[in-house]
Amino acid sequence: MQKEELERLRHSLSHIMALAVKEIWPQAKLGIGPAIDNGFYYDFDLSDVDSRKDGFIPEDLKKIEKKMKEIVKKDMKFKKINLSIDEAIEKEKERGEIYKVELLNEIKNEGEKEVSYYQLGSLQDLCRGPHLESSGEVDLKSFKLDKLAGAYWQGDEKNKMLARIYGFAFNNKKDLDYHLEMLEEAKLRDHRKIAKEMDFFSVSDKVGPGLILWHPKLSKIREVLETWWRKIHRENEYDYIYTPHLGKSVLWQESGHLDYFKDSMYPPLIDKESKDEYYVKPMSCPFHVEIYKSKKRSYRDLPLRWNELGTCYRYEKSGEIHGLARPRGFTQDDAHIICTRDQFKDEYRKVVEMTMEVLAVFGFTDLKYYLALRGSDEKEKYVGDSDVWDEAEKVIKEILDEKKIDYEIEEGGAKFYGPSLDIKIMDAIGREWQCPTIQLDMNLPSKFGMTYIGPSGKEEVPIMVHRTIFGSLERFCTILIEHYAGDFPLWLAPTQIKILSLSESQIEYCHKIKKEFLLNDLRAEVDDSNETINNKIRKASQEKVAYTLVIGDKEIDSGTLSVREKGVKELKKIDKDDFIQEVKRKIKNFQ
Amino acid sequence: MQKEELERLRHSLSHIMALAVKEIWPQAKLGIGPAIDNGFYYDFDLSDVDSRKDGFIPEDLKKIEKKMKEIVKKDMKFKKINLSIDEAIEKEKERGEIYKVELLNEIKNEGEKEVSYYQLGSLQDLCRGPHLESSGEVDLKSFKLDKLAGAYWQGDEKNKMLARIYGFAFNNKKDLDYHLEMLEEAKLRDHRKIAKEMDFFSVSDKVGPGLILWHPKLSKIREVLETWWRKIHRENEYDYIYTPHLGKSVLWQESGHLDYFKDSMYPPLIDKESKDEYYVKPMSCPFHVEIYKSKKRSYRDLPLRWNELGTCYRYEKSGEIHGLARPRGFTQDDAHIICTRDQFKDEYRKVVEMTMEVLAVFGFTDLKYYLALRGSDEKEKYVGDSDVWDEAEKVIKEILDEKKIDYEIEEGGAKFYGPSLDIKIMDAIGREWQCPTIQLDMNLPSKFGMTYIGPSGKEEVPIMVHRTIFGSLERFCTILIEHYAGDFPLWLAPTQIKILSLSESQIEYCHKIKKEFLLNDLRAEVDDSNETINNKIRKASQEKVAYTLVIGDKEIDSGTLSVREKGVKELKKIDKDDFIQEVKRKIKNFQ
Repeated sequence: MQKEELERLRHSLSHIMALAVKEIWPQAKLGIGPAIDNGFYYDFDLSDVDSRKDGFIPEDLKKIEKKMKEIVKKDMKFKKINLSIDEAIEKEKERGEIYKVELLNEIKNEGEKEVSYYQLGSLQDLCRGPHLESSGEVDLKSFKLDKLAGAYWQGDEKNKMLARIYGFAFNNKKDLDYHLEMLEEAKLRDHRKIAKEMDFFSVSDKVGPGLILWHPKLSKIREVLETWWRKIHRENEYDYIYTPHLGKSVLWQESGHLDYFKDSMYPPLIDKESKDEYYVKPMSCPFHVEIYKSKKRSYRDLPLRWNELGTCYRYEKSGEIHGLARPRGFTQDDAHIICTRDQFKDEYRKVVEMTMEVLAVFGFTDLKYYLALRGSDEKEKYVGDSDVWDEAEKVIKEILDEKKIDYEIEEGGAKFYGPSLDIKIMDAIGREWQCPTIQLDMNLPSKFGMTYIGPSGKEEVPIMVHRTIFGSLERFCTILIEHYAGDFPLWLAPTQIKILSLSESQIEYCHKIKKEFLLNDLRAEVDDSNETINNKIRKASQEKVAYTLVIGDKEIDSGTLSVREKGVKELKKIDKDDFIQEVKRKIKNFQ
Repeated sequence: MQKEELERLRHSLSHIMALAVKEIWPQAKLGIGPAIDNGFYYDFDLSDVDSRKDGFIPEDLKKIEKKMKEIVKKDMKFKKINLSIDEAIEKEKERGEIYKVELLNEIKNEGEKEVSYYQLGSLQDLCRGPHLESSGEVDLKSFKLDKLAGAYWQGDEKNKMLARIYGFAFNNKKDLDYHLEMLEEAKLRDHRKIAKEMDFFSVSDKVGPGLILWHPKLSKIREVLETWWRKIHRENEYDYIYTPHLGKSVLWQESGHLDYFKDSMYPPLIDKESKDEYYVKPMSCPFHVEIYKSKKRSYRDLPLRWNELGTCYRYEKSGEIHGLARPRGFTQDDAHIICTRDQFKDEYRKVVEMTMEVLAVFGFTDLKYYLALRGSDEKEKYVGDSDVWDEAEKVIKEILDEKKIDYEIEEGGAKFYGPSLDIKIMDAIGREWQCPTIQLDMNLPSKFGMTYIGPSGKEEVPIMVHRTIFGSLERFCTILIEHYAGDFPLWLAPTQIKILSLSESQIEYCHKIKKEFLLNDLRAEVDDSNETINNKIRKASQEKVAYTLVIGDKEIDSGTLSVREKGVKELKKIDKDDFIQEVKRKIKNFQ
């Protein structure tokens, strides 16, 4: 089913729900009821409904759903009616629909003379449409009311809070069931749930909201990611740099952050001696610019590719902080490429290719590309030479076309400093996450007066590309936790090998071979608890450890190991050194 | 010559200098004149010396030195005289020596009745001694005046600034010459000089004083150090963790930092919403404590060994900031060991051993150990159980004795939270640097209410050890830069291999093999400039690159390399893959 058809279905269901609610509680006043991703909602003002003054109760969902099904079964027509705007206002006033009156007055102010209504049974609702021909077209088993929520009228917290009902709607039962199943799966995979079970991270009131304390297990995953990320960048001829977390206000003034980004920054601290204001960095770019400017550059030095795992701080609103997924402190896998106009196409292409290669390692090959351009209006909103913009936009499109990459264009969505390519990845249960972003910057180089001596001896201004692949270690680890549901591939797993002692007399040997694994850069853990061996095996299996070794006297005497591999039924007998080599071989590309 | 004898010589030279100054400028008033490391100084008040009201001039050093030599040649006796304190005060008043009067009054207030003087020629100077028998014992070529400086009387900036003259003094000419040579050498090795030549780091006014921007070459050294440091810690069963750079004031209040350490911290920033104060961290410990406390711990979980390369910020006074050696932002190679009282000795020993092993890799085997204890007085200055202190001090001494480590005890030098073992390393030119510190903490565990369930089911308080080996990456890199004078060992060198193109036609191949080296985790650079090959070779040799490869057509055709190795005269022909394996083998222990 096409996107438009699905939207029509969902929108029609929102009308069906409104009719159902009005039939049960005629005093309910209507807000708005659009189609949304996966379904629809409608907002109601219940202040005149005596029995529901405090809002709907959870049991109402069943009741409304039942009424909706009756409406579907009655196969009622959606009938379009055109009314003059004044007639419409008069009618809505009569019906006491104060929100519709407000909407109509807004429409009138915009100069409209006529509006369209859709009639379904007794419900005449202001609506552009389109709708189904008839309620009977809805598959009875393809929709389901989801949940109740509060929502301010017109999204403005100064307005009244209305009662919102969300519903899911799909083309058929199968799609609905799949969606519900994925939701269940998502709950199970919620990174906060898994993180708690696996002791991955914590947040402390004493430290502050959104400031993550990484515990050893998740730190291991992060370390492995970082090590591999650095290696890939070295191989791709990037140079790693380190920059501080504090910078004076003059830096953020010059970069434009204090003009455009201040709300997202922590407030400043004030130097005791000099009275200078210092900000914790929300981005690392101005520091990279300062390094660039620390000496004269020539065209022969370009391109420069500088990467940094830069920990940044952004003042997310407290209501928007969400576990590891949206913290206030996060480490960007940042890089800046500084190059000449001639080198730009090549460099940009390499960034796109590297991004694809990195993501593919995690199985993220189903990528969606969104290219945000200046669009045709308001060119004055954007800094930098207009012809550089034109050329850059053209070059980026060429690269994507050459690589046969499908992309959506967002006209007018560019950053003020340049066009931006945002890439969304799809995880194991079909959810989209935005991680990589590749942004051309035509602001900082000129604002900071970055130059290089060109081949002719003349000073020129370089082009700068900002990019991140993971987005942040926090965000990417969130995705990995949910994507793998805690069942990490061998190279990433915090514990690769679990060593179980059969009885107390093997404990020492277990620790001895653990140390041997460590010296081979393998991550091993000993379970020397008093549990039975079966319980230990069960626990290791719940923890999804790749290799479980049971150590009895036989193993000690023979120097061989009994290896239980995740997903493999048979126990394997293998010489200890061969085992070490086998595991090392499997992960060697990531070290 | 014994330390005491050398001190007597230096102290005597300070009297000889005072006499020389008084003979030239009789109106000069005396401050104090002690022996110090490498020599001596004396402070003078010149306000009554008409020709030197603004202080000595550089040429005076020669003049004074000449006069001192005359005094030495005259072989004048040092004669001890005892005076009653009141008589001494009277005499100094007569002589107009107001500083001596002040000192004598202080001595009198302490209850002393008598003081000793030493007479040398016309100079009677208040002094405990001891001194040489006679000025003639001084070797004429064993001392040298060094420099002029200003110094507040009694070190208090509210007092008058006196004119200080520093001198070097050794047992003989050879020792003096060696010291002067080392000083020259130290100037050449000054990390700021080398760092500028090698483009290692910069500091920007816009970022702020003491906030280091690490450029690619020094970042490479840091990366290698960090990678190896992490590996060693993994092998020694430490778990790496990551913690934020900001924490609320309640955290620093509880940890004691706001009471004891606030002056060394940046001022706070104030949360817009909650009005909470946040500090950038001066240490990572409280965060590690919060991770510890994020769940219930059992004795079975201990010992915990957590390491972190934690970037901390301390508000060094602007006059004390010194390049990379003393910045405001620095990354500690931090670790905390949390263990039971039973495990303490073993854990502490392992920390000492690991510290020695790490330092030995850089050739730092000549270590000086300083053990700071509570001392017998003022036990109330220290937190924690007195018997735990006693035991801990005993155990630490036992460990050092068992390992046959010589150490100096500093009675009363302990931190308020526990005894501290500070280790100084000696660099290639004999300078001492304090880097590692191992500190027992009997404060945080109880202050933060850290507990674990002991074997009996009772809650117990763990012991915590803070330690750092490098001190900080900034400090340790400073030392390495000066220690190696920029000539880094292969595993640390920012560039290991330099590839020189003979002419333009080999440039592409040069970059191709550079990439091959990179893929083998070797750090290579291409010099494809228009310089002559001899100039390129000279440049690579100045940069102290370990391997220099000249690439001509012959090398391309044959697939072999002509390798010029640092310190080796002969060119070596070697197959490319063999060369890669050879270099990899040499550095494999550090990867």
